[in-house]
Amino acid sequence: MTHSPIRIGLIGTGRIGQAHAANIAASPDATLARVADPFIAGATAVTERFGGTATASAEELIDSGEIDAVLIASPTPTHVDLIGAAVDAGLPVLCEKPIDLDIARVDALAPRVAASGVPVAIGFNRRFDPAFSAVQARVAAGEIGRLEQLTIVSRDPAAPPAEYVGVSGGIFRDMTIHDFDMARYFLPDIVEVTAIGGALFDTGAQQHGDLDTAVTTLRAASGAIVTIINSRHSAIGYDQRIEAFGAGGMLQVANAPTSLVSLSTAETVEAKAPYQAFFLQRYAAAYALEFDAFVRLARGEDSASSTFADGRAALVLADAAVRSAAEGRTVAVDLG
Amino acid sequence: MTHSPIRIGLIGTGRIGQAHAANIAASPDATLARVADPFIAGATAVTERFGGTATASAEELIDSGEIDAVLIASPTPTHVDLIGAAVDAGLPVLCEKPIDLDIARVDALAPRVAASGVPVAIGFNRRFDPAFSAVQARVAAGEIGRLEQLTIVSRDPAAPPAEYVGVSGGIFRDMTIHDFDMARYFLPDIVEVTAIGGALFDTGAQQHGDLDTAVTTLRAASGAIVTIINSRHSAIGYDQRIEAFGAGGMLQVANAPTSLVSLSTAETVEAKAPYQAFFLQRYAAAYALEFDAFVRLARGEDSASSTFADGRAALVLADAAVRSAAEGRTVAVDLG
Amino acid sequence: MTHSPIRIGLIGTGRIGQAHAANIAASPDATLARVADPFIAGATAVTERFGGTATASAEELIDSGEIDAVLIASPTPTHVDLIGAAVDAGLPVLCEKPIDLDIARVDALAPRVAASGVPVAIGFNRRFDPAFSAVQARVAAGEIGRLEQLTIVSRDPAAPPAEYVGVSGGIFRDMTIHDFDMARYFLPDIVEVTAIGGALFDTGAQQHGDLDTAVTTLRAASGAIVTIINSRHSAIGYDQRIEAFGAGGMLQVANAPTSLVSLSTAETVEAKAPYQAFFLQRYAAAYALEFDAFVRLARGEDSASSTFADGRAALVLADAAVRSAAEGRTVAVDLG
Amino acid sequence: MTHSPIRIGLIGTGRIGQAHAANIAASPDATLARVADPFIAGATAVTERFGGTATASAEELIDSGEIDAVLIASPTPTHVDLIGAAVDAGLPVLCEKPIDLDIARVDALAPRVAASGVPVAIGFNRRFDPAFSAVQARVAAGEIGRLEQLTIVSRDPAAPPAEYVGVSGGIFRDMTIHDFDMARYFLPDIVEVTAIGGALFDTGAQQHGDLDTAVTTLRAASGAIVTIINSRHSAIGYDQRIEAFGAGGMLQVANAPTSLVSLSTAETVEAKAPYQAFFLQRYAAAYALEFDAFVRLARGEDSASSTFADGRAALVLADAAVRSAAEGRTVAVDLG
Repeated sequence: MTHSPIRIGLIGTGRIGQAHAANIAASPDATLARVADPFIAGATAVTERFGGTATASAEELIDSGEIDAVLIASPTPTHVDLIGAAVDAGLPVLCEKPIDLDIARVDALAPRVAASGVPVAIGFNRRFDPAFSAVQARVAAGEIGRLEQLTIVSRDPAAPPAEYVGVSGGIFRDMTIHDFDMARYFLPDIVEVTAIGGALFDTGAQQHGDLDTAVTTLRAASGAIVTIINSRHSAIGYDQRIEAFGAGGMLQVANAPTSLVSLSTAETVEAKAPYQAFFLQRYAAAYALEFDAFVRLARGEDSASSTFADGRAALVLADAAVRSAAEGRTVAVDLG
Repeated sequence: MTHSPIRIGLIGTGRIGQAHAANIAASPDATLARVADPFIAGATAVTERFGGTATASAEELIDSGEIDAVLIASPTPTHVDLIGAAVDAGLPVLCEKPIDLDIARVDALAPRVAASGVPVAIGFNRRFDPAFSAVQARVAAGEIGRLEQLTIVSRDPAAPPAEYVGVSGGIFRDMTIHDFDMARYFLPDIVEVTAIGGALFDTGAQQHGDLDTAVTTLRAASGAIVTIINSRHSAIGYDQRIEAFGAGGMLQVANAPTSLVSLSTAETVEAKAPYQAFFLQRYAAAYALEFDAFVRLARGEDSASSTFADGRAALVLADAAVRSAAEGRTVAVDLG
Repeated sequence: MTHSPIRIGLIGTGRIGQAHAANIAASPDATLARVADPFIAGATAVTERFGGTATASAEELIDSGEIDAVLIASPTPTHVDLIGAAVDAGLPVLCEKPIDLDIARVDALAPRVAASGVPVAIGFNRRFDPAFSAVQARVAAGEIGRLEQLTIVSRDPAAPPAEYVGVSGGIFRDMTIHDFDMARYFLPDIVEVTAIGGALFDTGAQQHGDLDTAVTTLRAASGAIVTIINSRHSAIGYDQRIEAFGAGGMLQVANAPTSLVSLSTAETVEAKAPYQAFFLQRYAAAYALEFDAFVRLARGEDSASSTFADGRAALVLADAAVRSAAEGRTVAVDLG
Repeated sequence: MTHSPIRIGLIGTGRIGQAHAANIAASPDATLARVADPFIAGATAVTERFGGTATASAEELIDSGEIDAVLIASPTPTHVDLIGAAVDAGLPVLCEKPIDLDIARVDALAPRVAASGVPVAIGFNRRFDPAFSAVQARVAAGEIGRLEQLTIVSRDPAAPPAEYVGVSGGIFRDMTIHDFDMARYFLPDIVEVTAIGGALFDTGAQQHGDLDTAVTTLRAASGAIVTIINSRHSAIGYDQRIEAFGAGGMLQVANAPTSLVSLSTAETVEAKAPYQAFFLQRYAAAYALEFDAFVRLARGEDSASSTFADGRAALVLADAAVRSAAEGRTVAVDLG
């Protein structure tokens, strides 16, 4: 069965919006039909490069009748309204994470999404990383027996600007939220969150009462324990590793090399080039695969896309981590 | 300056006692003078192999007048009394960890040790592992800038017998205690402990209300955060890794290879032999270096030996972890 | 300064021609204008996918007036005539290796190419591999001091069909020719060739008096020694490694991992996925960069493209290797 | 069955003699009974440390009636006479390599050794390296199918003094001889030798017409091809690697790490400490296992010791390599 390409309306043309535009344009299954950004020059730059028609208005894009699905890459505070408008219009949505920083707003939106019957995917791109998805599949296939411990090391190369930190919702809702979703990729039913952290180096975090360093442990209903180790900076480059420890063995995902070359001298041997700069490089393949999955979802086919419920669950875990770190106690959660 | 060899009295001839006997015999700075074990055949077997005179009585050993220092490798419940007797006799002590499972007994002994002025070392052998001590020294020298996160993975190959679990004091006092000391090797002043765990696979732990899987986070006075990941079993062999993450880089200690050989086939490439079986293999060099340090301590020289205070501090942290895991809250500690 | 895209005429639409077509289509600096293949269905399939007009006739393509440069990916026996026709027409050429299997035909063509003043590049794609070119640049920059030994391991995944072996010109002219060029990338002035080999496993090689296993050593004018280790099969996948050994250190290029995942069990640890299947995967980036360099060459800009002289030199070394292996003696060469 | 320890007479107390003395002393199956060196202070220093009686005279040692076997670690020119005297006296011999630099002298000795019926082992210690012997056993067991290529990289840390180079017999007889034996460990029946080399950096080699850099290829009767890559210096430390390539896979022996620590910074990642300094460190285990095998040989038990015939064969290959490098041609050998 052949399909005509899905016409995508892209909302938001910042760094991540541009990356999505490139993937849409490169996909044989999709075309970039409309691009909206109130900063119209941004929208125009994208359409000149990747095709489609630019508009300043997301509403106009949704109501254009010229698109089959919406990709939302605009700032977080706009997500809830745009998802709502899109599903009301019957348009499948791929929305960047997080849905919102306020669980009350997410919960208010949930029935509207459910009632619409329109598929909504949340942009947890890391589920589509070939290494992470291979490990998840191999764990699920029983290759290392029962999963007992999952360790996620996730460190960004450098802290964001202080003004961003102030509106980010804090490290757990802004950064760890990816790791919460990764934890749920392996162990969907998390029942308990314990977090500690500090503001060791980032003046933005220090000003805004946020953390730059955090360790979160999760307990799954199965009894398995997840450890998430975060830092807002990493001198060695983007540090993204996973270790799944089971009764029968261990599967590890190493940092991605940027070169096959190593140097040995009288001082040190086998020294390699630093790891990738940041997520657009490290997860380039993941973004493309995430979009492919969304196309399948929009077509009503089987798809591994993260769901609205996944987006909500990650925020619930982030809220619990905020509370745990603040109150110095383990917080029970019910993702049911 | 030359010294005559120190005459060592060894108490306890189980697995670890035998390992110490071999190191004493191999040291150019020591001789094995007396060996005590109520299981006299054990003591005799050691003296036949490594020299010295066997006795069933530790008291007799201490009072023999034929030894210059005592190495205590007998069961934990005997440690407090034997340390007390040794320091009363003016004999420097190297005692296997832990000092005791009951902090009250340790605290009762402390003034007696202090008043004696006799040096007491506690057998935290891992401080002497060449890899761990190199990392500690390089961190201390500022090679990776300020230390922000320390991650310790410590997994035993297999759970101990159920009867041992019942008298072990629990995973934190029995197993994690080594990792608590390792944390303090890098960050002596720990102020806060948070632990979670479960009994996922070991029937001994399940019977005795103990844990077989645990993750503990520590906060240091400096703000640095330590993560300790434990399991009572490990299909891949003894899993002992450390990662020191600083503002300027990262130092990692890998598991020790047991062979230089790797196999590549059509199925997998670069496959290596499993890691070492357990601590006597992995830490063979550490035990020898620990004994060397004790000889220097006994001679009144500079020494990196763990102290009685270190032994107490590790137990305080273990107690706090027990409480944290039981009560679901962070526990403040004062090691001052 | 901006350029209008270069219009490429592609001759040959086999596996490698298709790969070039994709790179031409993906380049912002080029368009695929004409595609020629006597097997017209092949040409049409390429134009339908990547654009341009299909023709059965390479002559028609060259004379069309619709192209600015020619990319020759047709069978080796056609190369000499097509290069000649293209340079006569003033069209820059990128021709797949080898120029020809017969050095006499290459030498007969050389003055015609020289007289034309038209740039001719030979498709030694490996010079553009990011790892190899990084090592070459670092060696040239003196990072490991004087280069003393270069070791090239180059093993194909599986032997070609017996009928291909019969017309291939033999392992040295067909396969090792890439390694000869790689050797000259580091050490252009080779003065001596010594080769041995055998037909250990491939019935095609055995039938046709060819080799499937060979080791060739080269001596450079600088005194440096190159070792090339070849096999026509490799159970572990495409095996492509380089090691540059200098007075001050060593730079190594490892095989390219296909996954970041490793598995550890009780049997083996750190086992990884097999290496890449073959050259189209391993050298995907190299082919794209090779084409970029050709665009610069065609525009008269500085370019790292292999030249006609490089193509000739590789064949001279291959011929010398054939003679050396047959006669059991070192063969002097003069590439001057 | 228990044995009384074998009483060893050690001849020669240079660096390698001292290493043997330590292994003899550490062996439960042997004692160091007599030590001979015309430099009597050297002999005395060894007996003071490891036991036994010192003498200036090797003859006296052999005739003492106080030894059961002889270990010859004296300069090469003395080997032939001492082996002859020892076998005449009925004493099993372990002699350091090479037997002699002159094949005529070796061949003259051979019938005397054979007629004596006394076992003579030659000190090719690398056969006892746990990694190399594991690979040899796994190849022999068919783990990688038919062995097609064996690659040996063998580079010393630094060239020997010029005066030593002058009497060394040249790189092939002095250094490569170990690699010739290693080749024969995997492929005993070598039929052809091809070698090239140069004197690139070592003034000693340049003065004495020797080489400091060499590549030798061997053809085995099975058709398998061996490549030996040598250098007299190596900035990165002692470089000792082996790669066995078979129809079904590849077994590799990596250089031995000296630490488990790696450093990652913004400049390079996973940088490790340099490799081991030289053979006494790298092959410490091999020397001990070699001596164990000799004890078994001396007792008439099964043993993996290299034989007198192995020692002769390595010299035949070295002579052929000298001729091949000098004459620029492949040299056939008959080790039968």
